[in-house]
Amino acid sequence: MNITDVKRVLIGEPFPTSMEMHERLDKIRALAIFASDPISSNAYATEAIMGVLIVLGSGAIALTLPVGLAVVSLVLLVIFSYVQTILHYPGGGGAYMVAKDNLGTVPSLFAAAALLSDYALTVSVSVSAGVRAITSAFPEAFHYRIEIALVAILLITWVNLRGVRESGTIFAIPTYAFIGGGILVIVIGMVRYFGMFGAPPIEITQVNIAAQSSPVGFAFVWIILRAFAGGCTALTGIEAISDGVQAFKPPESKNAATTMIAMGITAMSLFIGITFLSTHIGLVPNEAESILSQMTRRIAGPGFLYYWVQIFTALILLLAANTGYQDFPRLSSFLAADSFMPRWLKNRGDRLVYSSGIVMLAVISSLLVIVFRADEIAMLPLYALGVMLSFSLSQFGMFKLMGKVAKLKPGESMKTNVTEIHYEKHTLWKRILNAVGAFVTFVVFIVLLTTKFKEGAWVVALAIPVLMAMFYTVHRHYDRVAAALSTVGLTEASVNEVADVVIVPVGDIHRGTLLALTYAKRISNDVRAITVVTSPEMKDRFLTRWKKFPHITDGIELSLLEYDFRDVLVPLVDYIEHVNKTEFCDKLCTVVVPEFIPEKKAAAVLHNQTANRLRSRLIDNKDIVIIEVPFHIDSQLERIACETEETPNVDVVEENTEE
Amino acid sequence: MNITDVKRVLIGEPFPTSMEMHERLDKIRALAIFASDPISSNAYATEAIMGVLIVLGSGAIALTLPVGLAVVSLVLLVIFSYVQTILHYPGGGGAYMVAKDNLGTVPSLFAAAALLSDYALTVSVSVSAGVRAITSAFPEAFHYRIEIALVAILLITWVNLRGVRESGTIFAIPTYAFIGGGILVIVIGMVRYFGMFGAPPIEITQVNIAAQSSPVGFAFVWIILRAFAGGCTALTGIEAISDGVQAFKPPESKNAATTMIAMGITAMSLFIGITFLSTHIGLVPNEAESILSQMTRRIAGPGFLYYWVQIFTALILLLAANTGYQDFPRLSSFLAADSFMPRWLKNRGDRLVYSSGIVMLAVISSLLVIVFRADEIAMLPLYALGVMLSFSLSQFGMFKLMGKVAKLKPGESMKTNVTEIHYEKHTLWKRILNAVGAFVTFVVFIVLLTTKFKEGAWVVALAIPVLMAMFYTVHRHYDRVAAALSTVGLTEASVNEVADVVIVPVGDIHRGTLLALTYAKRISNDVRAITVVTSPEMKDRFLTRWKKFPHITDGIELSLLEYDFRDVLVPLVDYIEHVNKTEFCDKLCTVVVPEFIPEKKAAAVLHNQTANRLRSRLIDNKDIVIIEVPFHIDSQLERIACETEETPNVDVVEENTEE
Repeated sequence: MNITDVKRVLIGEPFPTSMEMHERLDKIRALAIFASDPISSNAYATEAIMGVLIVLGSGAIALTLPVGLAVVSLVLLVIFSYVQTILHYPGGGGAYMVAKDNLGTVPSLFAAAALLSDYALTVSVSVSAGVRAITSAFPEAFHYRIEIALVAILLITWVNLRGVRESGTIFAIPTYAFIGGGILVIVIGMVRYFGMFGAPPIEITQVNIAAQSSPVGFAFVWIILRAFAGGCTALTGIEAISDGVQAFKPPESKNAATTMIAMGITAMSLFIGITFLSTHIGLVPNEAESILSQMTRRIAGPGFLYYWVQIFTALILLLAANTGYQDFPRLSSFLAADSFMPRWLKNRGDRLVYSSGIVMLAVISSLLVIVFRADEIAMLPLYALGVMLSFSLSQFGMFKLMGKVAKLKPGESMKTNVTEIHYEKHTLWKRILNAVGAFVTFVVFIVLLTTKFKEGAWVVALAIPVLMAMFYTVHRHYDRVAAALSTVGLTEASVNEVADVVIVPVGDIHRGTLLALTYAKRISNDVRAITVVTSPEMKDRFLTRWKKFPHITDGIELSLLEYDFRDVLVPLVDYIEHVNKTEFCDKLCTVVVPEFIPEKKAAAVLHNQTANRLRSRLIDNKDIVIIEVPFHIDSQLERIACETEETPNVDVVEENTEE
Repeated sequence: MNITDVKRVLIGEPFPTSMEMHERLDKIRALAIFASDPISSNAYATEAIMGVLIVLGSGAIALTLPVGLAVVSLVLLVIFSYVQTILHYPGGGGAYMVAKDNLGTVPSLFAAAALLSDYALTVSVSVSAGVRAITSAFPEAFHYRIEIALVAILLITWVNLRGVRESGTIFAIPTYAFIGGGILVIVIGMVRYFGMFGAPPIEITQVNIAAQSSPVGFAFVWIILRAFAGGCTALTGIEAISDGVQAFKPPESKNAATTMIAMGITAMSLFIGITFLSTHIGLVPNEAESILSQMTRRIAGPGFLYYWVQIFTALILLLAANTGYQDFPRLSSFLAADSFMPRWLKNRGDRLVYSSGIVMLAVISSLLVIVFRADEIAMLPLYALGVMLSFSLSQFGMFKLMGKVAKLKPGESMKTNVTEIHYEKHTLWKRILNAVGAFVTFVVFIVLLTTKFKEGAWVVALAIPVLMAMFYTVHRHYDRVAAALSTVGLTEASVNEVADVVIVPVGDIHRGTLLALTYAKRISNDVRAITVVTSPEMKDRFLTRWKKFPHITDGIELSLLEYDFRDVLVPLVDYIEHVNKTEFCDKLCTVVVPEFIPEKKAAAVLHNQTANRLRSRLIDNKDIVIIEVPFHIDSQLERIACETEETPNVDVVEENTEE
C-alpha cells in the first residue's frame, strides 16, 4: 500500500473540479458548520458579564441583563453590517475584501492578520475548552489533556480534509442538539418562572454579596464597559459566513444572508434567555460550576435534559474549532490570490477544500495548544481582540462603500476594484448604522486591548505586525518573480543562448558512466569528459579502460585533472566554471552526471552522492544545467541477465564502482 | 562566512595528499596516542582482581599478586603475538586482517564486529569515567554529567579531525604525566617498603576480613578465574597499534613493534608495581576511594604528588577515549575497502584522517552516553568482551599463519591473500605461544560472557550478530552494484539507446518556460510541449500566448491535456510514460522542466516545486531523464534592467507566474 492508497482510504476518492457545485452547502448544513462558534459562546458569555459586575456587589448583578441587551444590540448592528457585506461582496472575503476595496491595502492586511490569528486561536481555545469539559468528568485524563487536544485537532482536520459537505453533515448533530437542548431549557424555565400552565414555581435564590468596591463616575463607567467587552465574546465567529459566501449553493448571497440572520436570531435568543433566567433566579458565578450548568440543573433537575445540555455543551465547544477550519483556509486563499501568502494556499485539494490551509491551521493551532499546555484560560485574553479589530475595519469599509452607493442615481451602477454596486435606498440610515457599529466595536477593541494587555493581549498586538511584515515580504518576492518572468519587451536576445557543449565528470569507466557519455553524445557535438587523477597509477588505469570502449569514447575530448587533495569536487567545479566563463560566457552550459538509483532508497547512504553535491556547489552559477542520467541497478541487472546465459563474471577488484 | 570558512577555522587548511608522510607519527607521539587506553587501565585493573577475591576473606587478598602475575604473563603472550602480527601485516588491520587472511570471512567479521563495538564503548566508558572524576571533585556538576560527557566527546572529536599528528601532540602531555607520576609513586613506595636509603617505613595495615564463602574445588577455581578475567581489563587497548601500523613513520613495522613493546613494558611495570604495593601494605577495596588513590596517599601523603596523580588519572581516563578514535575509523576504512561498510568510510578528509569514521564514532558513543546516562559502571560489563574475542581470533589466525611459514625452506617466500611470508626460525615455539594465547583469551572470553551475561554482556552478544548482518547486507548491495556496472561482456547494444525526443511540461508562457523550450530545441529535433488545461478560458488564453512567441514555439508540437482534477501531475506523468512506453520503448526519454532559483533558498517554500514533485513521481521509471533548466530570478532581473532603460512594466494580472 503506497502513499496514494493511504490518502484514498483517509480522504476518499478525489472529486472532479466540475463537481464543485455538488460540494456546496445547503442552509441547514451551513448553519451547523459556521454557527458552532457564535452559538457555543453562550456557554460562557453571560458569565463573562457577571464576572466583571460582581465586584460591585449583588445589586450590580441585576445590571447583567441591561448590559446583555446592549451586547445584543451591537450584535444586531454587526449582523446587519455583515448582511450588507454579503450582498455587496458575493465573492466572499469578509472584512479583508471590504477593507481592501474601500480602505486600501494596509487596513485590509490589518484585518487579515487579525482574523488569521483569531481563527488559529479559535481552534486551540475551543479544543482546549472541550477537553476541559472531558477532564472535568474524568479527572484521571487531566495528565493527558495536551495529547487529547492534539488528537481532537487531528480528528477535526481529518473530517475537514474529507470535504466541506461531509464535515457539515458530521458537525450538524451536536450543533442542533445543543440549540434544541438550550431552547428547551429556556422554554421550561420561562414557563416555570412565569407560572404558566400551572407549572411548579422555580426556586429563586436571594443573592447577598458585599461590593468589593463602590466606584463612582468614570471608574463605574469603566467597569460597565469591561462587562460589556466581556459580553462581546459572544460576537466571535459571527463574521464567519461573510468570508465563506462561495461555500453556499446558489443563489450564494441570498442563502448566506438568510443563514446569517438565522444564526443571529438563534444565538441571541439563547443569549437573552440564559441571561434573563440566570439573573432572575439569582445565580452567581461560581468557580466549581458554570452559570449554564447551574441554570440547567435548577430548571430541569439533574435528569436526562441536564446531561444532554452538558454533553452537547462540551461537544459544541470542541466543534467551535470548525469555524476556524472554514475561514482560515478560505481567507488564506484570498491572501494567496493577492500574493500575500504562498501561492499554493489557493490550490484546492483532491476533495475541493483548501487542503494546504487546513493543514497549516492544524499545525499552528497544535503548536498553540502545546505552548499554552491546552489551558484555554491562558489563551482567552488573546482571543476576541482580533475579531473586534476586523469588525471595526469591516464596518468602516461598509460605511465608505455606502458613501459611493449614495452618489448613484436610480438605475445607475458602477464597478469598484472587486465588486459592482447599484443604486439602492436608505443609504443614509445604512451609513449611520455602519458608523455606529464601527465606533462601538473599536471602543470594545480598545477596552479589551488595555484591560487584557498584560494578561496576554500583547501577544496578538505583536503577532499582527509580524504577520503583516510576512505578507509584505511574500508580496515583494512574487513581484520580483513576476518581473523576472514577464514577457513584456521580450526579444529574441532576451532568452539565454544554449551552448553546444556538454561536460561529463567521470570517476571511472563502468556501465553507468558509459551510459552518461552516450547520452551526452546524443545531445551535443562537443562532449568533454573530465576525471580527477590523484596518482600516476590511477591515470594509467583510467586511460587503459577509456581506450577499451572506442565505440563510445571516440569523439569525446578527455581531460585529466591532477589534484593533490581529497575533495575532488573542487577541480571539477573549477573546470566547469572556467569553461562556462571563458568559452561560453552568458550561455547555458550542460553538465551530465550519472546517477545511481539503488533498489531501495535507504541504500543511497552507501553512495557518495556526487551528483547531489555537485548540484549544490553549482546552484549559484546561473548558466549551468545539470543532467542526472539515471542508472537503475535492478533493471540493469535484469538487462545483463538477459544478455548472458550465465551470471556475469564480476571483476570487483578491477572495477572501481564508486559513484 | 560560509560553511567552508567555518570548516577552515575549526579544522584548519587542507593538507595535500602528498603530505601524508609528514602527518605520520613518531614513536613518542604514537605511544601517547595509542597507549592511553591500556595505561589508563592501571587506574582500576588491580582493584578489579581484589574486588572478586575479597569474598574469600583477607587471606585471599594475598592471591592478588599471583593472579596479577598471571595476567602479566597473558599480556606478554598477547603482545608477543601482536608484534608478530605487526611484522607480518605491515599494512595494519590487526585482528581483522589476520582473521581474514587465515581463518576466512566469517571469523574476520566476528573480530571486526567485536572490535567496533568495543571501540565505541571505549569512548563512552572512558569519557564517563573521566567525567565521574570531575563530578567527584565538584558534586554540583553531577546533574550535568551527560552534557559534560558530550562536550568532552565533542572536544576529542574536534582534535582528532584536525589531524593525527596534532592530536598526538595534544594528548602526549597527560599520558606522560600520568606515567611519570605513577612510576614516581611506585619507586618511592618500594624505597620506603624495603627501607632503602634510610627512608621512613611505610604504614602497613593488618587486613582482617571474614570470608563470605569458603568454596572448594571447582567453585574456588571459578572465583580465581573470575578474578583473572577481571584483571584482564588491563588488556583492553593493547591491540590498538596493530590496527594502525600505517600511522607510523617508516619503517612502519619496526617503529610500531618497538612502540608496542615499550607500551607493554610501561603498562605492565605500573600494573605489577601497583599490585605489589597495594597488597603488601594491606589495602582493601573501598567504595569511597580507589585503590590507586589510597596507595598514592599512603605512600606520598596528601601533597603535590597525590594531586598530580589524581588529576592525571582523571585526564588519562578521559583520553583513553582517544584510542577508540584511532582505531574505529581505521578499522572501518578496512571494512569499507572490502565493501562491508559504506565506501565513503575509506575516504580521508581534508586533514588526511578518516573524518567520516571519526564523526560516526562520535555519534555512536554520544548515543551510548545518553542511553546509559554517562554511567560507566553500567557500561563496563559490555566492555572487554569484544576485545577478548578478537584476541583469541587474532592469535588463532597467527597460529595458522605460522603453520604456513613452517612449511617454507630457508630463502623461500610465498604470498598469502594480503601479505607475503618468508622463511623464519623458531616457528614451532611461535605456534605454541600463539596457541596458548588463543586458548587462554578464549577462556577469559567465556568467563566474562557467562559471569557478565545478565549484567549487560548480552547487549554485546546481540550487537555482534546484528553488525555482521549489516556487513553482509552492505556487501550484497555493493556486489549487485558492481555486477550492474561491470563492463564484462559489454556490447554496443548493452548501453541504453537515447531517444531523440524531449517533453516539456509547461504551466504558462513566461521567460522561464521560454528558456526551457529554447533549451529543449537545442538538444532535440522532436520537442513536445504539454500543458494541462482545466477550463476553455484557460485553453484560449494559453493558445494566444503560445502564438505570441513564434521564434521559440515554431517547430514544437503542443499537446493540451484536459483534466478535471487538481493534481495536474497525474496527466503529465501519464503522458510522459505513454510516450516512453509506446513510441520509445527501452530508450531514454528526456523531460525538460524550468526550475526557479529564488535569491534566497527559504523562498523556495513560496513555489510549487513542480520539478521536484515530478522527479519524485518519475524516479521509478528507469528510462526517463529529467533536466531542470535553472531560471535565476535575480540574474534575470539584472538582464531585464540592462535591456530596458526604464523598469519593466510588470503585467502581473495577465501573467500566471506559478511554477
